[in-house]
Amino acid sequence: MSTVLRNVRLMPECGFGQGSVDVRIDGARIAEIAPQIALSSNDTVVEGRGDLLLPGFVNTHCHAAMTLFRGYGEDLPLSRWLNERIFPAEDRLTAESVYWGSMLAIAEMLRNGITSFSDMYFFCDSTARAVLESGIKANLSRSLVSFAPAINLAEDTRFAEAVALVKEFHGAGDGRIRVDMSLHAEYTNQPDYCAAVGAYTVKHGLGMQLHLSETEDEHNACIARHGKTPAAFFADLGVFDAPTTAAHCVWVTDEDIAIMAEKGVTAAHNPTSNLKLGSGVMPLRRLLDGGVNVTLGTDGAASNNTLDVLRELRLAAILHKGVNHRADITTAAEMLSMAARNGALAQGRGDCGKIEVGARADLILLDLSAPHNMPVYDLAATVAYSAEAHDVRMTMVDGRILYADGAYTSIDLERLRSEAGRVIAHYFD
Amino acid sequence: MSTVLRNVRLMPECGFGQGSVDVRIDGARIAEIAPQIALSSNDTVVEGRGDLLLPGFVNTHCHAAMTLFRGYGEDLPLSRWLNERIFPAEDRLTAESVYWGSMLAIAEMLRNGITSFSDMYFFCDSTARAVLESGIKANLSRSLVSFAPAINLAEDTRFAEAVALVKEFHGAGDGRIRVDMSLHAEYTNQPDYCAAVGAYTVKHGLGMQLHLSETEDEHNACIARHGKTPAAFFADLGVFDAPTTAAHCVWVTDEDIAIMAEKGVTAAHNPTSNLKLGSGVMPLRRLLDGGVNVTLGTDGAASNNTLDVLRELRLAAILHKGVNHRADITTAAEMLSMAARNGALAQGRGDCGKIEVGARADLILLDLSAPHNMPVYDLAATVAYSAEAHDVRMTMVDGRILYADGAYTSIDLERLRSEAGRVIAHYFD
Repeated sequence: MSTVLRNVRLMPECGFGQGSVDVRIDGARIAEIAPQIALSSNDTVVEGRGDLLLPGFVNTHCHAAMTLFRGYGEDLPLSRWLNERIFPAEDRLTAESVYWGSMLAIAEMLRNGITSFSDMYFFCDSTARAVLESGIKANLSRSLVSFAPAINLAEDTRFAEAVALVKEFHGAGDGRIRVDMSLHAEYTNQPDYCAAVGAYTVKHGLGMQLHLSETEDEHNACIARHGKTPAAFFADLGVFDAPTTAAHCVWVTDEDIAIMAEKGVTAAHNPTSNLKLGSGVMPLRRLLDGGVNVTLGTDGAASNNTLDVLRELRLAAILHKGVNHRADITTAAEMLSMAARNGALAQGRGDCGKIEVGARADLILLDLSAPHNMPVYDLAATVAYSAEAHDVRMTMVDGRILYADGAYTSIDLERLRSEAGRVIAHYFD
Repeated sequence: MSTVLRNVRLMPECGFGQGSVDVRIDGARIAEIAPQIALSSNDTVVEGRGDLLLPGFVNTHCHAAMTLFRGYGEDLPLSRWLNERIFPAEDRLTAESVYWGSMLAIAEMLRNGITSFSDMYFFCDSTARAVLESGIKANLSRSLVSFAPAINLAEDTRFAEAVALVKEFHGAGDGRIRVDMSLHAEYTNQPDYCAAVGAYTVKHGLGMQLHLSETEDEHNACIARHGKTPAAFFADLGVFDAPTTAAHCVWVTDEDIAIMAEKGVTAAHNPTSNLKLGSGVMPLRRLLDGGVNVTLGTDGAASNNTLDVLRELRLAAILHKGVNHRADITTAAEMLSMAARNGALAQGRGDCGKIEVGARADLILLDLSAPHNMPVYDLAATVAYSAEAHDVRMTMVDGRILYADGAYTSIDLERLRSEAGRVIAHYFD
């Protein structure tokens, strides 16, 4: 039994020209793409109406449960925001609140055409349950910090939680969940701890998620502390020998970029969060020209305040033109690659983020018929500069439709509203 | 006969606390606001479901008909974009294509909660017809240029068009249309022409729209040409003696800001267009601190690519934090003022852009119940950082509902699609 998406439009680089095509999905994968596919009686047919079929967006940096803190402490300097608002609120989190916060995030992401996300947080088994139940994909990681030197990994409860997460969930849901390791950042960790966690990550063939040179202060403090940049710090400790996604990279130097390219480190660009927290603007063109894999991320809803990769795509598409005074510094097509394929590669999901036979069917349909998308001279420009998340008509993960025309197939939205509301009222009013 | 909006939420500064209220609209104006309004039998009742009632957004800088060029020539340097794409395309415009391009813009704006816009273009009578038919408000202006010196105003056909526009449409539609004068910019005009047009504008009590210090080159070339900045140029010629809205103001100096504050010149901030064209970032904090009335604009869809003031609001709300590395440099509440009330004042519409008895009923309802807006800790933050144009459930202008729940009451969307498509295909394929 299979699903056939009839009469959809593909980007020109898919090689099917301007006309519409049909796409057959068998199980979790794309089985056939052709101008017209003959249907069999037990096919499920989805009428595409000429809408644009794209690979689902990949959100490569998130703290999903922080939806609970959306709008909680705005327009404050970073230190006051963290110390007076976010840290005290996070201290009151429980496994239950992280579950509902994660489900709220997933509902938002599915509506916004996000088929996979990478997450750093705690109570990660709650997030894993929400991922399994909702049908979305995620690279989950338990964020590790080490403020005291000479921590014995065997006695470290946070590391134990990370290892337990790997054992319980890595590969779960037919591979929908991958568990990565995570070192929160240089400034929250000791070198010996980073080296030990890095070695564990490499030994077990896992991915690594971390924050890198998000703020100027953090970048310069690392140089003062260790005589090297955060990128050199992690590289020298062997952490970058694991496939790493480094969030932010606002203050990376050309030497850092060379290290990242050599080590295959992905730079996850979070333009909204970097602006809203006053961190600055990533040197995107230099990263791309240096051969670094660049992806998009939303960061958590506390600093964004939405989980909308298409919004990040559009912001990235205009921001670097503006601050560099060069309207031709990036192209719409580069942004589209960052939003999907590059993200899939960063997550270690080489069979995702592309539309071709054999690829995983992580797909979205974009309805471009509303006035704000008219006319369409160039599809990439329309997606990058005009389209909005609400134009996403359908979100499919591993061949399963999870969201279509305003309705969820795997999430009870009314119950989610009620339970999330209860958790929010209990913990944060 | 009146319309009653039942059970709507207001911003706290409206003075009705946290609970919901009813709002009665008699004709074009707000007649009553109270916790509960007794209905009479011939009232039209609109159920507000607890949605947020805001003044409609005011788009203070637009070239509406340029929707026809949305996505037409992307990722190019400004000179190539103008000379190879926009100017040749504009040369092929007709009264008919401007009508359909304007109507397409209006449909998009109404869906996005925009109740009034300011426009600089040509074939302005076509735009005026679209405004009158659709029910939206607009300050329309025929953009004037003067490349030769000593132009005799009495023989200038462009000026004659501007004067004819004033005579035919100023005050039309119960004041929905106001006709402003427009000097395109310093670099496209001669001083004597500016002085003469400025004197006409002042004499007839009209408003003025112009572009000011959009790019660094333009700003510096004016200093080289005239020994003064564009703001000083216009002020010295008497142009700023008319109530003026100056678009962009990216490169204004502190002296320019002092001039603008003294003369009551509004600065229309167009953050998307300024980024996308590589122009730079307006010194917003300095303008606000200098006492200048700052508003929001989209510019035309050729350089945006959407006509969505809420998108500009959100971008402004994060952009200045990021490029100045100060998360507390602006507040959500400041952005909301820029998006509505400040815009109404710039348009010379003192009875718009506010929710109080006696004000014009230019109102929108925002549905904040979707996951991406949960939770709501602070309404201003939710509007500024989370909400999106699709959350606009209803747009009302002068007491008349023009858009509600996806449908237009004054625009035939199918015909618009077809006619706009025909015009686009004919002129630009």
